[in-house]
Amino acid sequence: METALYLIPVTLGDTPISQVLPAYNHDIIMNIRHFVVENVRSARRFLRQVDRDFPIDDSTFYEMGKHAQGDFSTYLKPLQQGMPVGVISEAGCPAVADPGADVVAIAQQKGFRVIPLVGPSSMIMAVMASGLNGQSFAFNGYLPVDESDRAKKLKALESRAWNESQTQLLIETPYRNRKMFEAILHTLRPQTRLCVAAGITTADEYIHTHSIQDWKRIQLPDLSKIPTIFLIGR
Amino acid sequence: METALYLIPVTLGDTPISQVLPAYNHDIIMNIRHFVVENVRSARRFLRQVDRDFPIDDSTFYEMGKHAQGDFSTYLKPLQQGMPVGVISEAGCPAVADPGADVVAIAQQKGFRVIPLVGPSSMIMAVMASGLNGQSFAFNGYLPVDESDRAKKLKALESRAWNESQTQLLIETPYRNRKMFEAILHTLRPQTRLCVAAGITTADEYIHTHSIQDWKRIQLPDLSKIPTIFLIGR
Repeated sequence: METALYLIPVTLGDTPISQVLPAYNHDIIMNIRHFVVENVRSARRFLRQVDRDFPIDDSTFYEMGKHAQGDFSTYLKPLQQGMPVGVISEAGCPAVADPGADVVAIAQQKGFRVIPLVGPSSMIMAVMASGLNGQSFAFNGYLPVDESDRAKKLKALESRAWNESQTQLLIETPYRNRKMFEAILHTLRPQTRLCVAAGITTADEYIHTHSIQDWKRIQLPDLSKIPTIFLIGR
Repeated sequence: METALYLIPVTLGDTPISQVLPAYNHDIIMNIRHFVVENVRSARRFLRQVDRDFPIDDSTFYEMGKHAQGDFSTYLKPLQQGMPVGVISEAGCPAVADPGADVVAIAQQKGFRVIPLVGPSSMIMAVMASGLNGQSFAFNGYLPVDESDRAKKLKALESRAWNESQTQLLIETPYRNRKMFEAILHTLRPQTRLCVAAGITTADEYIHTHSIQDWKRIQLPDLSKIPTIFLIGR
């Protein structure tokens, strides 16, 4: 196997591994003993799910959040010694709306090979299933919490959706999903289209697209504990 | 199996199915007999790769490109009769930088369930492996062909990368990759970072990030036949 920094996606929620990860990932993961992770406990749990016999006690875990950025380069020492390193985040794909980009940047800088593996990306799956423009789209992360700043940002994203035909994605902390949904209905134009994509790949999966005016007549399910992406399009 | 419009990703190039698609997709696909496809020949080839015994002769294929948008609703008739329908594009994920969004939009409008499956997205994998900001990024598709329009657009994307910390993705027709690469080096600031992500998941995979000034000293491989994503970041 190639000596490289492998970017290892995990499931989104309680989905079976075989539903969202290619069999190939198993073979790659089984050959790795050094992991840079967002959270050690959940990374161990994931590795046990991938293979009950994964030699966790022979593996080394480096937690990303706990150290200053300068330490990242020490995480990559196994690569210098010819050993592969894996990156694992809490949900979905590392380094996309999740930590990991810093350690990848250092690997790129030092000239190590970086190999991304396939896995579930709630963002891409939301764009696919939204019916909104997939030829141009932007992921904007979290919006400001302050009400008027948020409304201003929503308006700016709506303008971009209309003027550039660019679908605009944003996320919110689950317990604030209801509030975000109401702010969107309150702020955007009646003809603007909104896709609410929640619990992607899980039993709770809910992906629906309507105009703002139609959403005002629709009963939204309780999304207060479900990771949700909001997509704004024209 | 649920009656739904299933969005079925395919491989990017000559990659084995098991490297990039979860086993689950096989089980879903085996239960579908109606497909809305970008190209009938390549869709049939894909289904044969998924399973040598796939009953292709018992299946119906609707080619997206060949008909006016109005016909899309007829493609969805099987859904009204309780039968699942699959959407397959030429490479990667349908409806993302690929046709399919129109038929998904109609399914959403008519209230059919739309279920995206996991597969390789060159865009997400490029963001993952670039080391550039993955908390905010935009996919912009193709840029204008005209030289001065293209330079203007590149400048605008660079501004957005710096001012909004938003990584900017763009693609080019492979035989023009060299020209695009040169235009980028010529147009952007020395400190701006560029990731060239080519042939993702294939034997030709090449994903490297450098500053513009460093790229000027680097020999780029021949990418004239390899699908490539350019990522601009700060």
